[in-house]
Amino acid sequence: MIAARPRYAAEDLRRFVTEVFERLDVPPEDARVGAETLVHADLLGIDSHGVAHVARHPGYVVGLRGGWVNPHPQVRVLRETPSTVALDADGGLGVAVAPRAMARALDKAAAVGCGFAAVRNSRHIGAAAHYSLMALDRGMIGIAMCNGPGTAMVPTFGREARLSTNPVSVAAPARQGAPFMMDFGTTVVAGGKMELALRDNKPVPAAWLRDKAGRPSTDPRDFFAGGTIPPLGGDAETGGYKGYALAVMVDVLSGVLSGTGYGAMLSLQTQGVFLGAWQVEAFLPFDDFTGMLDKALGTLRETPPADGHERVLTPGEREWSTQEERSRLGIPLHPTVVEELRGVGTELDVRFPSAVPVSA
Amino acid sequence: MIAARPRYAAEDLRRFVTEVFERLDVPPEDARVGAETLVHADLLGIDSHGVAHVARHPGYVVGLRGGWVNPHPQVRVLRETPSTVALDADGGLGVAVAPRAMARALDKAAAVGCGFAAVRNSRHIGAAAHYSLMALDRGMIGIAMCNGPGTAMVPTFGREARLSTNPVSVAAPARQGAPFMMDFGTTVVAGGKMELALRDNKPVPAAWLRDKAGRPSTDPRDFFAGGTIPPLGGDAETGGYKGYALAVMVDVLSGVLSGTGYGAMLSLQTQGVFLGAWQVEAFLPFDDFTGMLDKALGTLRETPPADGHERVLTPGEREWSTQEERSRLGIPLHPTVVEELRGVGTELDVRFPSAVPVSA
Repeated sequence: MIAARPRYAAEDLRRFVTEVFERLDVPPEDARVGAETLVHADLLGIDSHGVAHVARHPGYVVGLRGGWVNPHPQVRVLRETPSTVALDADGGLGVAVAPRAMARALDKAAAVGCGFAAVRNSRHIGAAAHYSLMALDRGMIGIAMCNGPGTAMVPTFGREARLSTNPVSVAAPARQGAPFMMDFGTTVVAGGKMELALRDNKPVPAAWLRDKAGRPSTDPRDFFAGGTIPPLGGDAETGGYKGYALAVMVDVLSGVLSGTGYGAMLSLQTQGVFLGAWQVEAFLPFDDFTGMLDKALGTLRETPPADGHERVLTPGEREWSTQEERSRLGIPLHPTVVEELRGVGTELDVRFPSAVPVSA
Repeated sequence: MIAARPRYAAEDLRRFVTEVFERLDVPPEDARVGAETLVHADLLGIDSHGVAHVARHPGYVVGLRGGWVNPHPQVRVLRETPSTVALDADGGLGVAVAPRAMARALDKAAAVGCGFAAVRNSRHIGAAAHYSLMALDRGMIGIAMCNGPGTAMVPTFGREARLSTNPVSVAAPARQGAPFMMDFGTTVVAGGKMELALRDNKPVPAAWLRDKAGRPSTDPRDFFAGGTIPPLGGDAETGGYKGYALAVMVDVLSGVLSGTGYGAMLSLQTQGVFLGAWQVEAFLPFDDFTGMLDKALGTLRETPPADGHERVLTPGEREWSTQEERSRLGIPLHPTVVEELRGVGTELDVRFPSAVPVSA
């Protein structure tokens, strides 16, 4: 058991992060969008990609201070067609630049059926789910993926890392209840799970981690000392070459097609991004789609559970209910994260919010 | 060791399959396209999805004879935008109808940047790789996926099957050597691997199979007696919920968006199909893309190998070299497959070809 963590209102965290970014010379609207992207991850329960990154991840405060993240990017359109756009993000704050790229993809999908945006030279974009979920309010299916420096995943049959965790997210609108949403790294687990285990000082399953020498390990510190995470599927016999192939697919679409570069050639927290959407009404009536998706998801939820399990969840159901709960009760933060954010606030003269009262 | 199998020239097998389809009232052009799709799978080494299916799979001869596959489908456009099309395949031979749908997607991508086709009421489309690879000659990145009756995969935490193996394929053009190509079921292995093991009378790894009662099994016969294959990733702790989510994604895009239906509501070998392509030149100069992709794949191939392995392969490299070899030396067929095809030939008065001489 862990002690109940203090909870913070989403709007308070948004205000705090917005002001932090503004102090570091990010224009107000970019600061607001960036804060919204990060806090959305926390609302969804994707704690590894939310405000916990603000203080220490090179894509945020550290990068803005060190000149690695450009607070005033000149985002340029490199090529454009009715359904696609290629953008250069000019090293801008990923969580502010990428939502605008997705908005362009959504506008194109509204106009001609589907739309895609490839972004080069972005910094960390946060949780891929934020982008795929942007499509839902517009009656679309969203997709988002990004690559990064190739230090996390070893190709099948190899012994050195060449790929990042290369996440993919897809979301589709349902009529009632949780929509479909998947968001995962193409490794067995995301690197963020190692950060969480380290913060909690807990071991990880041996299937999650190889140390620098390629041996299975349960110590999350080994990951940050040159260790790697196996591709989804694990060894070749259990389908690991599929996770490896998925990671290469993400490298091709978000790294090569955007012109950013593939994992093995990227430096510190450069990301290539690939975002897109399909308009549901381009294919069939929206109500037919959502009606059938509700039934599809309902049928999955009603699958008789295996021994020892309470019930079957649909992809994204847990994030959906977490969002509902955290919108109501606030976002619980790890004491270490609170301490780090408080520290940043003190340095930049931004007041860190009070926790919400423990009632409700 | 197994004895060397007789090899057959690709053009002889194409001629044979074309004539078989024609005898079953399929128009000559559809018969030709269908045969080409199937033999392409054999050339690539995807033996589970090639001519081996002609005699016994319900999507081919059995279905045409039984009225399940429509030899004269009235393929209809249900909805269309500049970048998308929704088609009703009218129960037509999947391997003939789906290549035309992909051609429509490619034409749209050539015109407006990217293009997608959703197909409802298709029969078995063969190997997804055939469709994604169609994009390469046109300077595009291709994607293909299809769902089917939900009898193969049990959702994470469940104990009854709700999803098919729901394959996904993506391919991208390189400048020299093997392109990028992935093609896999979202289960640990494809159902076809069970067919192959059964034909060879060999056990399978226990990670591949659960019997009807949900217990691990190594007997491929258990799969055809109501068994299932775990999702890619296996158990939840090793990322099995990701393979489950991928399978649902395929169900959403190819089953629900096409209006065909999700796995649990589909009957015998009905497939929903989702196909598409992105024009590389819409994003960056084609030579920049292929040059960088060559480097990306080269860097992966040069990864130092792990102990006990000769070298690292890139996704699709094996299929590419198999295609080169089989184009030259012929396609090896299992004796059982030869016997079945010969039987079909005798019944329909189509001469089964001679094996190619064993020299070369």
